[in-house]
Amino acid sequence: MTPQPLADLIEALRCLPGIGPKSAQRMAYHLMQYDRPAAARLALSLQDALERVRRCQRCNAFSETEICARCASTKRNPALLCVVETPVDMNRLEETQAYQGFYYVLMGRVSPLDGMGPERMEMDKFLARLRDGSIREVILATNYTNEGEATAHYIATLIASANDLPPLSVSRLARGVPIGGELEFVDSGTLAQALRERRPIED
Amino acid sequence: MTPQPLADLIEALRCLPGIGPKSAQRMAYHLMQYDRPAAARLALSLQDALERVRRCQRCNAFSETEICARCASTKRNPALLCVVETPVDMNRLEETQAYQGFYYVLMGRVSPLDGMGPERMEMDKFLARLRDGSIREVILATNYTNEGEATAHYIATLIASANDLPPLSVSRLARGVPIGGELEFVDSGTLAQALRERRPIED
Repeated sequence: MTPQPLADLIEALRCLPGIGPKSAQRMAYHLMQYDRPAAARLALSLQDALERVRRCQRCNAFSETEICARCASTKRNPALLCVVETPVDMNRLEETQAYQGFYYVLMGRVSPLDGMGPERMEMDKFLARLRDGSIREVILATNYTNEGEATAHYIATLIASANDLPPLSVSRLARGVPIGGELEFVDSGTLAQALRERRPIED
Repeated sequence: MTPQPLADLIEALRCLPGIGPKSAQRMAYHLMQYDRPAAARLALSLQDALERVRRCQRCNAFSETEICARCASTKRNPALLCVVETPVDMNRLEETQAYQGFYYVLMGRVSPLDGMGPERMEMDKFLARLRDGSIREVILATNYTNEGEATAHYIATLIASANDLPPLSVSRLARGVPIGGELEFVDSGTLAQALRERRPIED
């Protein structure tokens, strides 16, 4: 006997990661009962983000402009490119203030179990970024999880096997990051250390 | 460096109950990265629900129509009114198929610690429902939590002190050992209550 628009809203809320049927129901009831202005705000924010948020042509992160402010900076070291899985990881590295190069955000990781094989990583944009000539070192800052390691391995192999790239050294964050750890939750000091002690990938 | 529309979306998602800044960020990134159709669907569902979901004039539950289908039924016992805190509670009681009367949904509970004093319960609609003459018994089916007990007590007092109501009996759901419950695992309070409210075995 739940009104159809409310049932639809509950169903729509389930698209949010980590939200099951009970949570979705609680959220829908809460919004309709106690916070209709918030529901209206959320609807507008969703539409606004859908219209205005796209990807930076250089770093692949979310951006409102074709080239994001970070990539447009002239104060960064154009020889360094740090590859991360997500925008959250990029923000965490920025917070350390230990890195002044540029970024490339994969927006994902190789994870065959979740149906994310390497072929779905859409690396053309990344390779094009490497071809622009200024990059001398690629720092692989994917997580030290199984998926992150596989992603780093995949990218290192991709770079090694590409024959149209300028000479590049490829490094990995030092293993100051705990095994199984995720960048998002590591303290800044450890992360800064891991940046400074990055090591070339061995064959 | 998070684009403003994305920052706004993260902020808007925090209006959902139980969602903190990290979860909101994860949700926003997930929607923008992996599931834009779901984000669009959610935005539409929110607006649709805001436009179409209102309250039933009789039972106070969510409804698309002025009187909900359940209250409009002619097959229910018009002498019984069951008072519950939320639409979820109403659905749970319906699932038992043990009740054929009508409902009144408080859409909340007396909870002074959360700023919900009795004066905010907006009981005029409830009292008007009792005055319509057909109700003979009010069953208080609020939770057996502190707040639910306080709410039941408040409503019982309200009914007793109103002098313009028809004669009404007021009851409360029985407390006791749950079906399938083992005494060993039932809490003392419940067990004590079950002892005090023991009933003669019927033939």
